[in-house]
Formats: sequence, structure tokens, C-alpha cells
Amino acid sequence: MKSEHIPRATIQRLALYVQVLETFRREGSEVLSSEVLAKACNVNPSQIRKDLAYFGEFGVRGVGYFVQDLISSIKQALGVDRVWKAALVGVGNLGKALLRHQDFPRRGFHIVGAFDCDPFKIGEEVSGLEVICSRRLKEKVEELDIEIGLITTPPERAQRAANYLVDAGVRGIINFAPARINVPETVYVEYVDFFHHLYAVAFNLNMDNQDR
Amino acid sequence: MKSEHIPRATIQRLALYVQVLETFRREGSEVLSSEVLAKACNVNPSQIRKDLAYFGEFGVRGVGYFVQDLISSIKQALGVDRVWKAALVGVGNLGKALLRHQDFPRRGFHIVGAFDCDPFKIGEEVSGLEVICSRRLKEKVEELDIEIGLITTPPERAQRAANYLVDAGVRGIINFAPARINVPETVYVEYVDFFHHLYAVAFNLNMDNQDR
Repeated sequence: MKSEHIPRATIQRLALYVQVLETFRREGSEVLSSEVLAKACNVNPSQIRKDLAYFGEFGVRGVGYFVQDLISSIKQALGVDRVWKAALVGVGNLGKALLRHQDFPRRGFHIVGAFDCDPFKIGEEVSGLEVICSRRLKEKVEELDIEIGLITTPPERAQRAANYLVDAGVRGIINFAPARINVPETVYVEYVDFFHHLYAVAFNLNMDNQDR
Repeated sequence: MKSEHIPRATIQRLALYVQVLETFRREGSEVLSSEVLAKACNVNPSQIRKDLAYFGEFGVRGVGYFVQDLISSIKQALGVDRVWKAALVGVGNLGKALLRHQDFPRRGFHIVGAFDCDPFKIGEEVSGLEVICSRRLKEKVEELDIEIGLITTPPERAQRAANYLVDAGVRGIINFAPARINVPETVYVEYVDFFHHLYAVAFNLNMDNQDR
């Protein structure tokens, strides 16, 4: 298994392949040619072969990929063939939407704790979870075996949320707040920022408009 | 202005610089050394200089960058120094969260129309907007001068939402649904996929666990 050296871009493409393969599976496809998969993913077939080669040999010449097998293999390679328990910090609009999002449990990410500092929110129930004071994160992370933290606070409270998560021993954070956070090097952080995408769309439309 | 050739990675970094600069501005900084900015963005100072060189000369030797000026210049270069009107299709949990998200109007993206196919949702009011039947998108896009579409439907309805938006003349789409969509080449699409990020975190934690 060479997976320790899988580059980040490959991991992102592998996640994309799973998404596209799941769409084909939903539509009833059992086998897929590498050309069809490549086209649907908007990459070339040799890139797919290269990415999959990190963790095995897949595809049958003249036949293609077996959809279910490939989904299972990629998920196993990525470590998402198991359940990951997560804590969400910041029960605002976005936090509530994520707590109610059916795709998290469906994909193996179970949000088992919802935390907020706001005394008006503590005790409120969202999607079957009672909102708990963020100061109790450490206790709850141990009790509930939480490994991943989702930050959905306003930007000015993201660092404090990160501090609570790090103190509690969480080693993986997904930060949805539009703010950078500082954490020790042993903690892995991913940023989800809608505005990068909005800016990219705006930039492209703007260029288009100037060309007209 | 060389901005037509700005690579995608640069645009993403420019969006990041704006985010970080806005944090410093919020905290009262007026001038920032290039080292401090670079460290906060987790890139090296020469990368920042290279990225900014696409649209002008910034920074004063021995002083640094003027925070407010730089924010304004980057926003102008990206085309986000104006208001962009957007339509949201799919008023589920995520759709509602985005409609209520204060950061959209704050950053110049005004969601002025909310659309859904579900007869039980049509007529409902969310964040001051009445939910309208998606079949009326074309009429509303013209009436409200909408240029950007946000798709927040379940994955199996994303393509239909995209078709409605394309038919209505929208040329920029941000797809939050976990599904690929097919659109004409003249339409620019950005994908927001939380699960790429979740998978990346899971993969890294998994590797960490194996190392222990």
C-alpha cells in the first residue's frame, strides 16, 4: 500500500470518482468503460488509471470498471469505509443545515455532538441532538469517541472553537467559517470556503462581460 | 490589465488574501508587512507578489501593504467590487441556510430569488423571499437581472435545476449538490463539495492512526 504518499490532488479526484460512480450506480450501471467514467469526471482516462494505481489494479481491458467494486476499493483506500464521529461547533444557520444534512450519515460521517457558546442555544434540540456548551467539548469528545470537528461559527469565533477542539484532542478539523485558524502541526485542517467559488464565478462572468 | 490570463489557482489565492486581509482589518490593522500576510495565508511572500503582479504593483518597500487599498484592488480585479444577483434553486436545509447567510450580501452576492419544484415549498417565505416554482426561473431571471445560479437540490435533481438555469440565460453556476452537471461550454460551473474535504480529513487521520 503506497497510500501514505497519495498527493492531495489525487485524494480530491478520488473523492470525485466516488461521487460520479455513485451517480452511475444510482442510475443502475454495474460496469463502466474508462472513457465514460473519465468524461463524466472531466479528466482523461490515463489520469484515472494513474490515480487508482496508488492502491491497486482496477478495470478489465475491453470491459471497464465494476462500479460497486471500484466504489468500495476507493472508499477503503481513503479510509471512509468506516464510521467517523464528528462534533459540530457553532449551531447557527449553516450549523443547523449540516446537522440536518442526510448526506453526512449516508457517507459515514456521524455528527454526534452539537456545541455552542450562546446560552440561548444551549439546551435547544437540533436534528435529535441537544446543543451543549462548547466548554464541555473535552468531556464529550472522550465520552463519544469524536475524531473530527466541524467549525460553523462566525469568523471571529473560529479560533476559539479550534482551541476547544484541539484541547479536546480532535486531530482533524473542517473549518466552514471564513477565517484562518492556527492549530498545532499534528492537527489536520481543511477549509470549506463558498466565497472562493463565488469569486471564481464572478471573475469569469466579469471577463465574459468585458469580451462582449 | 492581464487579468484574462489569471490562472484558477491564483484566483483562489486572491480570494484567500481578501479573507485574511479582512480579518486583519477587523482587528484594526491598517498596514501589513508582506511576511505577516504571507504567514497568515500560509504561502510565501514571493507567491503573493507574483499573484498581485497580475493586476498592478502593490506594497511599499520597508512598509508593506495598505490593508484597505489592497482589499479594494483585489476585489476590483476579481470583479467583486459590485453587486451580483443570484438565484437559489432547491430550498432544503442547505438552501435555507445559504438564504439566511449574512455573508452573501456582505460580500456583494445578493440572492434575490428562491426556487423549488416542491408544491409544499412554493409560496413559503424564507429570509424575506417567497419560494417560487422553478418553472418560472426564466421569467424571474429576466425580471430580477439574475446572473448567477446556486444549486442546492438533492443530487438527483441537480441536472434539472441546471437545465432551468441555463434555459433562463444564467452563465455562472455554483453547484452545492453532490452530483456532476452537464451544461453548455458558455456556462461556467464551480462545484462546492463538502465531502472532498471530509474525505481528505478522514484519509489523513487514517494514515496517522496506522502510523501509531
